[in-house]
Amino acid sequence: MALSFWLMRVLLPFAAVMALHAQNLMPLPAGITPGQGQLQIDESFRVAFTGYREPRLDAAAGRLARLVAARTGLILSGAAQGSATLEVRCAGAGEKVQGIREDESYRLEVTPRGARLEAATPAGVLRGFATFAQLVELDAAGFRVPAVRVDDRPRFPWRGLTLDVSRHWMPMDVIRRTLDGMWAVKLNALHLHLSDDQGFRIESKRYPRLQGMGSGGYYFTQDQVREIVAYARDRGIRILPEFDMPGHTSSWFPGYPELAAGPGPHEVPRGFGVLDGCMDPTREETYRFLDGFIGEMATLFPDEYFHIGGDEVNGKWWNANPRIQEFKRAHGMKTNEDLQAYFTKRVQGIVAKHGKKMVGWDEIMHPDLPRGIVVHSWRGANSLAQAAADGFSAILSNGWYLDLMQHTDQHYLVDPLAGAAASLTPEQKSRILGGEACEWAELITAENVDARIWPRTAAIAERLWSPADVRDVDSMYRRLAVVSSELEWLGLEHASSFHLMVMRLAGTHDPAPLALLANVVEPVKEYQRHNSRKYTTTTPLNRLVDVARPESAVARDFAKLVDGYIASRTGAGEIRSRLTAWRANAARLAPVLRDSALLAEAAPLSQDLAALAAAGLQALTTLEAGNHAPAGWVDQQLALAKGAAQPRAELLLSVVPPVRKLIEAAR
Amino acid sequence: MALSFWLMRVLLPFAAVMALHAQNLMPLPAGITPGQGQLQIDESFRVAFTGYREPRLDAAAGRLARLVAARTGLILSGAAQGSATLEVRCAGAGEKVQGIREDESYRLEVTPRGARLEAATPAGVLRGFATFAQLVELDAAGFRVPAVRVDDRPRFPWRGLTLDVSRHWMPMDVIRRTLDGMWAVKLNALHLHLSDDQGFRIESKRYPRLQGMGSGGYYFTQDQVREIVAYARDRGIRILPEFDMPGHTSSWFPGYPELAAGPGPHEVPRGFGVLDGCMDPTREETYRFLDGFIGEMATLFPDEYFHIGGDEVNGKWWNANPRIQEFKRAHGMKTNEDLQAYFTKRVQGIVAKHGKKMVGWDEIMHPDLPRGIVVHSWRGANSLAQAAADGFSAILSNGWYLDLMQHTDQHYLVDPLAGAAASLTPEQKSRILGGEACEWAELITAENVDARIWPRTAAIAERLWSPADVRDVDSMYRRLAVVSSELEWLGLEHASSFHLMVMRLAGTHDPAPLALLANVVEPVKEYQRHNSRKYTTTTPLNRLVDVARPESAVARDFAKLVDGYIASRTGAGEIRSRLTAWRANAARLAPVLRDSALLAEAAPLSQDLAALAAAGLQALTTLEAGNHAPAGWVDQQLALAKGAAQPRAELLLSVVPPVRKLIEAAR
Repeated sequence: MALSFWLMRVLLPFAAVMALHAQNLMPLPAGITPGQGQLQIDESFRVAFTGYREPRLDAAAGRLARLVAARTGLILSGAAQGSATLEVRCAGAGEKVQGIREDESYRLEVTPRGARLEAATPAGVLRGFATFAQLVELDAAGFRVPAVRVDDRPRFPWRGLTLDVSRHWMPMDVIRRTLDGMWAVKLNALHLHLSDDQGFRIESKRYPRLQGMGSGGYYFTQDQVREIVAYARDRGIRILPEFDMPGHTSSWFPGYPELAAGPGPHEVPRGFGVLDGCMDPTREETYRFLDGFIGEMATLFPDEYFHIGGDEVNGKWWNANPRIQEFKRAHGMKTNEDLQAYFTKRVQGIVAKHGKKMVGWDEIMHPDLPRGIVVHSWRGANSLAQAAADGFSAILSNGWYLDLMQHTDQHYLVDPLAGAAASLTPEQKSRILGGEACEWAELITAENVDARIWPRTAAIAERLWSPADVRDVDSMYRRLAVVSSELEWLGLEHASSFHLMVMRLAGTHDPAPLALLANVVEPVKEYQRHNSRKYTTTTPLNRLVDVARPESAVARDFAKLVDGYIASRTGAGEIRSRLTAWRANAARLAPVLRDSALLAEAAPLSQDLAALAAAGLQALTTLEAGNHAPAGWVDQQLALAKGAAQPRAELLLSVVPPVRKLIEAAR
Repeated sequence: MALSFWLMRVLLPFAAVMALHAQNLMPLPAGITPGQGQLQIDESFRVAFTGYREPRLDAAAGRLARLVAARTGLILSGAAQGSATLEVRCAGAGEKVQGIREDESYRLEVTPRGARLEAATPAGVLRGFATFAQLVELDAAGFRVPAVRVDDRPRFPWRGLTLDVSRHWMPMDVIRRTLDGMWAVKLNALHLHLSDDQGFRIESKRYPRLQGMGSGGYYFTQDQVREIVAYARDRGIRILPEFDMPGHTSSWFPGYPELAAGPGPHEVPRGFGVLDGCMDPTREETYRFLDGFIGEMATLFPDEYFHIGGDEVNGKWWNANPRIQEFKRAHGMKTNEDLQAYFTKRVQGIVAKHGKKMVGWDEIMHPDLPRGIVVHSWRGANSLAQAAADGFSAILSNGWYLDLMQHTDQHYLVDPLAGAAASLTPEQKSRILGGEACEWAELITAENVDARIWPRTAAIAERLWSPADVRDVDSMYRRLAVVSSELEWLGLEHASSFHLMVMRLAGTHDPAPLALLANVVEPVKEYQRHNSRKYTTTTPLNRLVDVARPESAVARDFAKLVDGYIASRTGAGEIRSRLTAWRANAARLAPVLRDSALLAEAAPLSQDLAALAAAGLQALTTLEAGNHAPAGWVDQQLALAKGAAQPRAELLLSVVPPVRKLIEAAR
C-alpha cells in the first residue's frame, strides 16, 4: 500500500477513527487509521524479529507474550514454527545510553493475517509493543486485535515521573512495578528523588556514612541501582537521579556534619516541611566532597542528566552563621539567592566535569548558568516559559503533583505549551522538553504508592505523548478505566491495595459497607492534611484517608447521572438505587466503625452520607411527582449539605455536590 | 504461675474459651486459657530471643514483624531497645533435617505487659509465631492481642499438601506462596508431584534428557530445588519429592525410551487420564537407571522420605510385551500386581540404599515390603486402616482431593482415625501419621492454583493439627473467612486472582454483574468436567468455571437465611434484598455476556438465576402475607428449579436448593 494513501487516511477526522479503533489506547497515538476485520489472538501467538535484534528486544517480546498470556488466560504454545502473529522490523540499535533525542517513533499495521511493527530503534519497538498490548481485546469471537494502522511518535521527548523515595522508603518491588506501569503508558524517564531531609537512600562507597547514618537502613545498594537502571533500559526508560542540595539535606549531616551550614548535633528529622538543614556553600571542602560524591554517582547512573534539586532553601542557617555572612559580604552578595546562585554554579561545574548536564528545580535559574542545563519548573508555568525564553531547556511539573490529591482531569488539561509558553517563539518552545508527574512521599508508603500514582499518571502520560488537541475529558476517563485494568495485569497494586487496606480497617467484619464509604470519599486536597495533625515519617498511614482514592469514580458517575436527570429527567431509577444503597449503608457500617479504633473518626461521614442520601431520595421523589419541595425543607437540606461538605477525618464526601443539585432542583 | 494451675485451666470447656479468645485461630490449639486484658501492638513491636538462637529464628522473627506491619499498617520503628513485645525462649536446635518426630509443641503466654513464647525447637517457635500472628486483631482501642495462654502441640506429625506441578507447570512464585500459606496453618510437609505423564519437572544432571525432552522447558533447576528446600525449612516444612513410577511415566520416555515397556516413538502426551505409559520392570537397565536417578535426587532432597508413586498402572503395555509376559511366567507371577510388587521391592531397595524411607500410593502395599515404608492412601479409609493393621506406617489423602471441588466441610469432617481405623489398636493407630491434602493439576494453572488450594486447605490443616473433637462446622467456616484474609496479607492470590479473572471475562464492561454470578456458581464436582469436553494441557483455563470457587459462600449464607426464615420467619428483608439483586442481574449482565466469547456459555445460568430469584421473591411475598401458593404454581417453579439444578458450562447454580426450599415452603 502506497505511503501517500496512508498519509491521506491519517488525516481523517480523529474522533471518528478513535471511537472505533483506539478505544483502549492511552496515550492516543499521533495517527491512527482503521482497517477491515480483526487479527485473532490464540495460543499460537508469537513475536518474530526480521530486522535488527538484541537481547533487549528478545526480553521485550517475552514480556509482551507473558502480558498477552496473562490478559487472555491463553496457554501459549511457545512454538517457534508457523507464521508470527507480530512481525517486528527494527532498523538498528539505539543509543548506548538512551538520550532524550532517541527515536521513539513506530508504525504498527494490523491486518486479519498478522501484525507488523516497524521502528528505527528498540525504543520505538517498545512503544509499539505497548500499543499492541492495549489493542488486544475480548469480543464475541474471542481475543482479537482490530485491523488498524498506527503511525506514532511522541509530542515531547521528556516524559517522566518523579518518585520520592526519601520521605518514605520505596523498596525494589515498588520501583519495578512503577517502571512496568511507565512502560505501559509510554513514559520514558523515572526521576528518583534519592535524598532529602528525611532519608538518604543510596549507597555511597566513597562516603558510606551517608547511607550508614542517614537512611535507617533503607537505601538502594549500588547493585540494586544497576538493576534498576537495567530494568528501566529494558523498558525504554531513563533513570534520572536527584540529590537535592543545598537545602533538603538534613540526612547528609549525621554522617558528614562538616557539610552543614548550621550547628550539630545532627540527626535525621522525622517531621516534614521546609526544614532549616542546609549545606555550607562557602567552604571549599563542601565542593571537594560533592566532587567526590557526584563523581561516584555519575558513574553509577549512566543518564546524560543529573538533577541537583536546589529548591526551598529557607536561609536560616546561612543567616545565623557569621562566617557565611562574612563570605557574602566579601564576595559582594546581597541576598541568599546570590549565595545559592554561587553554589549552583560551582555544582554545575562539578556535574559538567563528570560529563553530565545539570537539572535543577526552578530556583536554580540564573543568567550566569550555561544554557545546556534543564530547569525543572515546580512553581508554575511562568518559570517554565521564562526559562525557555532565557535559552534554557525546561521541563514542567507544576500542575502534576500527584500528592495534592487532585482529580485526573485537572492534571490532564495542564499543557507545557499553554499559558505563558503559548506566546514563545517556535525555537523557544522547542526548549520545553516535556515534563514529569511528581509523587512526593510525605503521606504515602510502599503500600498505597501505586494507588497514588495510578491510574492518574496515565493521563499525564497522554498529555506528554499525544497531539496537543487530544483533550476530550470524557474519552480520557473512559480509556483511563481500561488502562487501569491493564496495569493490574502488569502486576501493579493500585486496585489490590485498596481492597487490602479496606479489609484491614474492617477487621473481621464484611468489608463491603466500608468499601462503599471509601468509594465516595476523597482525601482533602493540596497540603490540608498537614493542617489537621503533625505527621512524621513514622505516623501510621493506615486510616480511611490513606485508602480513599484521590478521585471518586462513583461520585463522578453519580454527578453525570444527576446532570442527565436534571437536563432531561432520565436515569431516575439508577439514581434512586444508588441513593437507597447509601442511605442503608450507615446501619450496616455502624458495627464496623464501632469495633475499629482506626475508623471511629469516619462515623460522621457515614452518617452524613445516609442523611444526604435520604434528602436526595426525597428530592427525587418530589421531582418525579412533578412537585416542588417547600422552601424550608430545601434550606434545611442545603444546610445539611453544607455541613457534609466540610472535611472530616481529612476526607471529603465527594457526592455532596450532585446531591445538592438534586435538592436545589426540587425547590 | 504453677504448671498445675495452667493444666487445670486447660481443662475448661473448650467451646466457651474459644468463643472469646480463639476466634481467629485456625487450626485451633490443643489447649487455650483466657487471660485478662490485651497486649497493645504498636510501632514499637519487637521480637527478642532469650534462649537458643539461629539464623532461621531471626529470619522467622523478621517475617513475623513484616506480617504484623502488613496487617496493621504500622511503620515499625525497628529499634532494638526497650522491652520486647514477644520474648522467645527456644531450648535448642532442632533436627538437622526436620523429621516427622520433630517437636513442634510450644507455649504462648500473652499478658497486657508482653508475650512470651517457649518451645523446645525452632519448629515449635515457628508454630507459635503462626498463632501469635493470628491473634493480632483490631478493636476499638487499636491493634491488640488478647491475653491468653496457649499450650499447643499437633495431633498428627505428618500434615501435608501434595502439589502436582506436572500436569500444569507451577513456577517458583507458586511454590513460595504455597509454603507461606502452609506456614500460616501449621502444615509441615509439601509433597511435590514432580513427574507424571504430562511433564518431567526437575533438572537431572545425570539424565538431562529427562527435563530436556520431557518438560517443554518448564522445570525446577537444582538450584531452585535447593531454594525451595531452604525456603520450606525456614518455615518448618519438609519437602517430599515424588517421582511416580512405574506408571504415569510417559514424560520420561522421549529422553530415555529404553525405560519404556511399550514401543515408541514416545512423546509427552497432552491428554489426561490413566495412560498406558509404563516402565519396563523386567530389565536390569531400568533399575540401574533408577539407582542413578534416585541417588541423584536423594542427595538433592534432604528429607528422610522419598515418594515413588506407584498408582494406576493399567498394565496394557505389560500385557502387550511378549518379553514381559515371558518374565512373569519365568518368575511365577500370575498378575500384573505381582509384577508391580516385584518392581516396588526392587525400587524400595534402591531408595533404602540411598538412605531414604519409601512412600508410595496404596497400590504398593504388599506383605513382602519392609515395615519402615509409608503407605499413602488415596483410595479410601480401608486401605489406610489395612496398612496400619499390617504394620506399615500410613498417611491419608482420600477425602482430601482439592481438585474434586468439594465443599470445605466435606474435607473438614474426614478424620484419619475414623471409619475402619477407629477399631484399630492404639499401637496400630499410632502408625497413622497424618495425611495430605492433594491438589492435582489437570484443570488448574498457576493463575488459579491459590484459589483451588486456599482457604479450604486450612480446614484440613486443622483436622491434622487440632484435637479430634474440634469438629464444629459453623465455627470452622467463621474462622476460615478470617484465615482467608490472613493469607491475603501473606501475599497469596486466591482472592486477587478471582478479581482478575472476572475482570478478564468482563472485558471493558463493569465486572460487578459478572462477579455476582461467579459468586453463586460452583464448578461441577469430582471428575465431571472431563465428561463435557476433552481437556489437554494446552486447553485455556480462562472460563467462568475456572473462576468460580469450589464452594459458594454466598449460597451457604443464603441457605442459612432461608433455613432461619422457614424455622422462625426472621430475616425476610435480607432474603428479599438478595433475591432482588439476583433478579435484576440478568439484564445488567446481558451486554457483558454478549460481548465476550468466553461467556456465551454462561447465559443460561444468568437467566436461570433471574428466574429462580423471581420465583423466590414470589414465594417470599406469599409467605409474608400468610398465604399459600397454588399447587400449580409451586409445581411449575419446582420444575424450573430442577432445570436450573442441571450443570451448564460445567457449572452448578448453587442457590437452587435454598430457593427450592422457599418455593416448597410457600405451598
